[in-house]
Amino acid sequence: MVLRGEEVTEAIPEFETLLVSSVLLGLVVIYLASKVGGELANRFKFPPVLGELLGGTLIGVSAFHLIAFSGEGSTVLDIVQWTEGMDAVAKAAVAKTQGEVLSVLSELGVIILLFEIGLESNLRQLVRVGPQALVVACVGVVLPFAAGTAGLMLIFHLSAIPAVFAGAALTATSIGITSRVLSELGRLNSPEGQIILGAAVIDDVLGVIVLAVVASLAKTGEIKVTQVIWLIASAVLFLGGSLVLGRVFNLSFVAIAKRLRTRGGILIPAAILAFLMAYIGAALRLEAILGSFAAGLVLDESDERNELDELVRPVADIFVPIFFVGVGARTDVSVLNPFNPDNWAGLTIASFLIVVAVIGKVATGWSVFGKPGINRLAVGFGMIPRGEVGLVFAGVGAGSGVLSPALNAGIIVMVILTTFVAPPLLRLAFGKNESPEAVTP
Amino acid sequence: MVLRGEEVTEAIPEFETLLVSSVLLGLVVIYLASKVGGELANRFKFPPVLGELLGGTLIGVSAFHLIAFSGEGSTVLDIVQWTEGMDAVAKAAVAKTQGEVLSVLSELGVIILLFEIGLESNLRQLVRVGPQALVVACVGVVLPFAAGTAGLMLIFHLSAIPAVFAGAALTATSIGITSRVLSELGRLNSPEGQIILGAAVIDDVLGVIVLAVVASLAKTGEIKVTQVIWLIASAVLFLGGSLVLGRVFNLSFVAIAKRLRTRGGILIPAAILAFLMAYIGAALRLEAILGSFAAGLVLDESDERNELDELVRPVADIFVPIFFVGVGARTDVSVLNPFNPDNWAGLTIASFLIVVAVIGKVATGWSVFGKPGINRLAVGFGMIPRGEVGLVFAGVGAGSGVLSPALNAGIIVMVILTTFVAPPLLRLAFGKNESPEAVTP
Repeated sequence: MVLRGEEVTEAIPEFETLLVSSVLLGLVVIYLASKVGGELANRFKFPPVLGELLGGTLIGVSAFHLIAFSGEGSTVLDIVQWTEGMDAVAKAAVAKTQGEVLSVLSELGVIILLFEIGLESNLRQLVRVGPQALVVACVGVVLPFAAGTAGLMLIFHLSAIPAVFAGAALTATSIGITSRVLSELGRLNSPEGQIILGAAVIDDVLGVIVLAVVASLAKTGEIKVTQVIWLIASAVLFLGGSLVLGRVFNLSFVAIAKRLRTRGGILIPAAILAFLMAYIGAALRLEAILGSFAAGLVLDESDERNELDELVRPVADIFVPIFFVGVGARTDVSVLNPFNPDNWAGLTIASFLIVVAVIGKVATGWSVFGKPGINRLAVGFGMIPRGEVGLVFAGVGAGSGVLSPALNAGIIVMVILTTFVAPPLLRLAFGKNESPEAVTP
Repeated sequence: MVLRGEEVTEAIPEFETLLVSSVLLGLVVIYLASKVGGELANRFKFPPVLGELLGGTLIGVSAFHLIAFSGEGSTVLDIVQWTEGMDAVAKAAVAKTQGEVLSVLSELGVIILLFEIGLESNLRQLVRVGPQALVVACVGVVLPFAAGTAGLMLIFHLSAIPAVFAGAALTATSIGITSRVLSELGRLNSPEGQIILGAAVIDDVLGVIVLAVVASLAKTGEIKVTQVIWLIASAVLFLGGSLVLGRVFNLSFVAIAKRLRTRGGILIPAAILAFLMAYIGAALRLEAILGSFAAGLVLDESDERNELDELVRPVADIFVPIFFVGVGARTDVSVLNPFNPDNWAGLTIASFLIVVAVIGKVATGWSVFGKPGINRLAVGFGMIPRGEVGLVFAGVGAGSGVLSPALNAGIIVMVILTTFVAPPLLRLAFGKNESPEAVTP
């Protein structure tokens, strides 16, 4: 119950009201973009997530600036300023905080997405394809890294450290995008889907380690072996430990959830577990999404899994679009414009990086062993999207001054194209035949 | 995929990672407090929402400081600092932004709560008790305002402006708390529940107008008649207009939702409507919750209402506890401590305000006309909680220097006690007989 008006401007804590207004209007724009984009993509037989990404691109920094995740001005803020009135200082403060709130909501979106993917995945199946996933992940990290670094040094005559950095940016697959596409195609629990998902998780851990190594290399010129060992150990301990402890916890979760009589009796304990494990994943210097994924896998083994699936679905529907639209809205696709001569150096490097990025991951499909009849192309295509992971590399590299503007732009273009190209390719690879799992609308 | 470590501290945009970690851990603490509090309250036959408020009080500024909504330090932040490492400057920045993020989530919580209450309410029943609700609202605003102002001037010898301000703080019922208790008791659609809900909505609009008047009076010493007329007109237009236009929109909503084939096909259009109307409510200088309530009422008339009810439930379960725990966590109950002589002046005034606040609203039950057999005590008790509305008055008054510390403390104590006392009283008034509607756990 907050009133704003010229008479009471100073007296009333109006910052929060303006902030809430701008977040509300921002969410309206985000949901509109995700729904229009998703539905259009679906009509044209593309995965909806591609439409959500494109919808985000249209409303974000690259095109119409309707919404901003990074604290700059946007049409939404102009409208709030126009309807509720605020001066330039207040507007800048609201813009900054609104960007932070939307960024947190988008992070919660990918955390909840991975929790849901964990719930949809079958731990036993995932363990069964463990060896194949491990090989796919390692091949998919080593191949693009080696080919990218070597090519940048030999063809583009870059020095070692920037070449290593750009090579490293080619390694990690984006779990978020690839798992959502698999889920949309109803292929999450196919052998290909399980291998891709397992490999993407391992990939993500490897990516954290690779980033630690190259960031340290870029800064001090040497590699801290203890840090690398620490990261590997904590990753193995965390994923292994959470699955073992998870079974113990699972029994108490079921016992507790059954005794709760107030609203949210199953959902809130599940959310506590998911957010707590996400926090632990982040605190161990791994990733929040690894924690929520492990939480989902563990709860998938419980008796309550079907009920929980149904309850998590609408929550994911509310949060997840903020993540995908956010990825699109934050990415500046103007570096793709070939008519701007400033972009040519970046585009040349990008063309090379894209070739390496695609071939390096597609080749992983042929590293799958002991699975006759597996759709190797689908596995390879599934590993292609680099998503936000590659953008973190670009950000770190640009921040530490290792990457030239052209190389930085090249990485960004590579990330954009691999992300946007993978969903339709994956759909193509799985063919037009109906998916074995029903895709509920 | 963000890594933090001593080597890369400067290079990596770690602020967002620290922020997400602190929000994740904050949500874990909030959900634990809400669940433990809610379940314990339920065991002792109190409404769960009372337990959520008390749980929030325990983890908030009054007791253990586990979590902070206002940007100060908290145990959660200490833990994040300990596990992830940050200096004092970063910690202060993270604390401030975390508080803002949690405040927005809590605002979204009450907006979604009122949307759900709108969905659960029956528009036709609400219109049928309209005249009674209007009278209850007016009596419930005029009585406490007149008695409070007169008493403060005659008994406590305050001058007119602070007395008017404190009297105004006695007027508005908290829709959030009262509607949740009614819903928990399964009485939302009883005649008493409908009258309370309708009166609370009208009350809220009256409260906005009263606040505008007294804030202007406090600042300039005069009342701006045009502003009052503008507020009344926009309130009537907004609530009336949204219901009329809503019927038109409703048909297109159903038509659109039926054609959507991707995930969230019903929920996302509903969220767009709810957030858009909440934004419009705020932009018209009314309230966001009035907009989402109207959106819920309108969609309750659609064919999709049952499906929508089920989808909104888990989303509300995730967001709403943040609101109630937040109300508890933000309220400093130390002003209640009778062993601190500093509190005596405030407690004396508070005792008077509480008596006026309770009697002034209980009396409204006897203003209900033409409804023989109505539970008048229940109607009166339902109007008692002042909740966050009263706190806004206290904040505005303290900010504009009109209220003395004792009077300010008195208002806060009045708000705390009316909020905490109403849920069990309401349960008592409805008696032990089983509720006519089932309370699904």
